Amino acid sequence: MTSIAAPIEPGKLPANTGSGYPEPFRLQVLPREKRALGDAAGLTKIGVNHTTLGPGAASSMRHWHTQEDELIYVLAGELVLVTNAGEQSLRAGQCAGFPAGHRDGHQLVNRGTKPAVYLEISNRDEADVAHYPDVDLCWNAPGSPGAYSHKDGRPY
Amino acid sequence: MTSIAAPIEPGKLPANTGSGYPEPFRLQVLPREKRALGDAAGLTKIGVNHTTLGPGAASSMRHWHTQEDELIYVLAGELVLVTNAGEQSLRAGQCAGFPAGHRDGHQLVNRGTKPAVYLEISNRDEADVAHYPDVDLCWNAPGSPGAYSHKDGRPY
Repeated sequence: MTSIAAPIEPGKLPANTGSGYPEPFRLQVLPREKRALGDAAGLTKIGVNHTTLGPGAASSMRHWHTQEDELIYVLAGELVLVTNAGEQSLRAGQCAGFPAGHRDGHQLVNRGTKPAVYLEISNRDEADVAHYPDVDLCWNAPGSPGAYSHKDGRPY
Repeated sequence: MTSIAAPIEPGKLPANTGSGYPEPFRLQVLPREKRALGDAAGLTKIGVNHTTLGPGAASSMRHWHTQEDELIYVLAGELVLVTNAGEQSLRAGQCAGFPAGHRDGHQLVNRGTKPAVYLEISNRDEADVAHYPDVDLCWNAPGSPGAYSHKDGRPY
């Protein structure tokens, strides 16, 4: 019987060191390395990224998802979780989750001097739209499917 | 603006120390502690458990899911991953994933002397059925929705 099950070493996967954000948001989330654990395992219904966030960088602009639950589990270092609740410390061994449809934008900021490492976990839903309450940005708006755009859907 | 986002400390969550398996399978997966991180965050589309598996215990009987992707990320200790590929070591910092519909049963066994700790991650799908190739066990069979049963659906 065949099997594709095999241990995956995150450090041996290729890192995505870029960001699909338009300027001026792109530079705010770098340096950042994302390694797609779920893709490496052939998964399509969930996404699991192993992400390393450099000092001074944010995980994303503050956002919430319409259809995708998200959970962050911190593996190493310390991050500042920014939501409508304000700023909260999130340390290695802690996690936080963000239910789909809750209109409470979140982001993680590395205010320390060392890289922070975390898992970001979500279901995958093609109908998902990400809203960014603080800036003129949207993901998967009706006028710009599968892309970042202005809130009204106009492409950047 | 209200927010429910808050750091979650896994060790402070209540542990599920039982198993829904019928005998003789139940005792094979204990001692085991599961803490439901996703539930604690109010998530409904994904499940994320923080699981501690004692020496000698198996995570589950070998199984595969029809509708749910699954990914295991080892936080501490070492486990033996058992699949159709045979036995493979899975250490802290490594992960393995199991795509929905792949008929390759998997389980993790703790053959060491210390507890092993891992995250188990999946999407949630009420239509999911779990098949157990080695034993007369099924989850969510047509005749026994939401329950463990014999392969033919008869209740235990």
